[in-house]
Amino acid sequence: MTNKKMALIVYSGTIDKLLSVLILSSAAISMDFEVHMYFTFWGLTLLKKGEMDKSGLPSDYKHLENQLKEKLKQMKYPAPYEMLRRLKESGKLKIYACTPTMEMFGITKNDLIPEVDTFAGAATFLDVAEDSKISMMI
Amino acid sequence: MTNKKMALIVYSGTIDKLLSVLILSSAAISMDFEVHMYFTFWGLTLLKKGEMDKSGLPSDYKHLENQLKEKLKQMKYPAPYEMLRRLKESGKLKIYACTPTMEMFGITKNDLIPEVDTFAGAATFLDVAEDSKISMMI
Amino acid sequence: MTNKKMALIVYSGTIDKLLSVLILSSAAISMDFEVHMYFTFWGLTLLKKGEMDKSGLPSDYKHLENQLKEKLKQMKYPAPYEMLRRLKESGKLKIYACTPTMEMFGITKNDLIPEVDTFAGAATFLDVAEDSKISMMI
Repeated sequence: MTNKKMALIVYSGTIDKLLSVLILSSAAISMDFEVHMYFTFWGLTLLKKGEMDKSGLPSDYKHLENQLKEKLKQMKYPAPYEMLRRLKESGKLKIYACTPTMEMFGITKNDLIPEVDTFAGAATFLDVAEDSKISMMI
Repeated sequence: MTNKKMALIVYSGTIDKLLSVLILSSAAISMDFEVHMYFTFWGLTLLKKGEMDKSGLPSDYKHLENQLKEKLKQMKYPAPYEMLRRLKESGKLKIYACTPTMEMFGITKNDLIPEVDTFAGAATFLDVAEDSKISMMI
Repeated sequence: MTNKKMALIVYSGTIDKLLSVLILSSAAISMDFEVHMYFTFWGLTLLKKGEMDKSGLPSDYKHLENQLKEKLKQMKYPAPYEMLRRLKESGKLKIYACTPTMEMFGITKNDLIPEVDTFAGAATFLDVAEDSKISMMI
């Protein structure tokens, strides 16, 4: 049986993909989904303290970065980390940090933001994903 | 309950990913799936009039672009926009344009091709995805 | 009805995404999932004999490539092709090569590693995906 859960692999470290994760998750939470974000590989680096709000566009779109960030301010979007924290306050978001990636990149628990709920490998994500209505890699 | 639907987030703006969307959707429609394409971020820009057939490869693969386009012609693939229109004629394809992206990029309804069915935010996509057998981000 | 299957579209040709495919699949197989990998587009090129272990990082992260490969050795990860072969030995992995991509890139069956089980188009993947608990594009 699948439940009203969405399981996302947050694979990418750029702000375009991160915005998609946050906006999609915000909509999901307002529709009463539980959201599970599994941060891995380049995405994992976004969980390092101070990193999330520094994320930029990939080089193919780098020339649009300032314009995009300006526009986001005009549209009154909070900074990404603030968006994540607001989603967390809903009590419907669970954040996982991928432990093999942490080892690969030499990142320790203390390097990461306190919003991380669980330090785990892929099996933990699959347990959630197999029980989710929607699972995607972003 | 899930139905014979496929829900795709068309996130990317390059022809390699667009071809995957179109070829996968063509197979799905021939298998009697309903296909729902939600165009967002760089993908949304493909819906601007005249843009879809101008899409190219990302810079890492740019050197292969002419060769790929030549080969597609030899293989008698129609241009991407024509492929989309043929899928639309099946009556089994629904196209969504992401409204937050439109605002972010200053794109209006009149800028977009007439095949767009619905202008909507992420919640509309999630409504469809949660009821779909297959949902993926491309 | 969905079964304990995971269906992955292996779209990318770089080692970061390939590692995600292999590590995720390894976890899935140890949890008794059947794993179905459909290699398409840049991913398909990884199936060419000798290519998988030559894959590197995309240009945005190229400067980290040597460091990552060194670290993987320290962590005792086998080379990617060896990882794939071990997963294959479990009897729970099925590998598909996308035939339209083969034609697009002028690749023949003889060019590919012997672990490929099936040469097929997107419809074959969709058949599996619609019956899978988890399906993702990587």
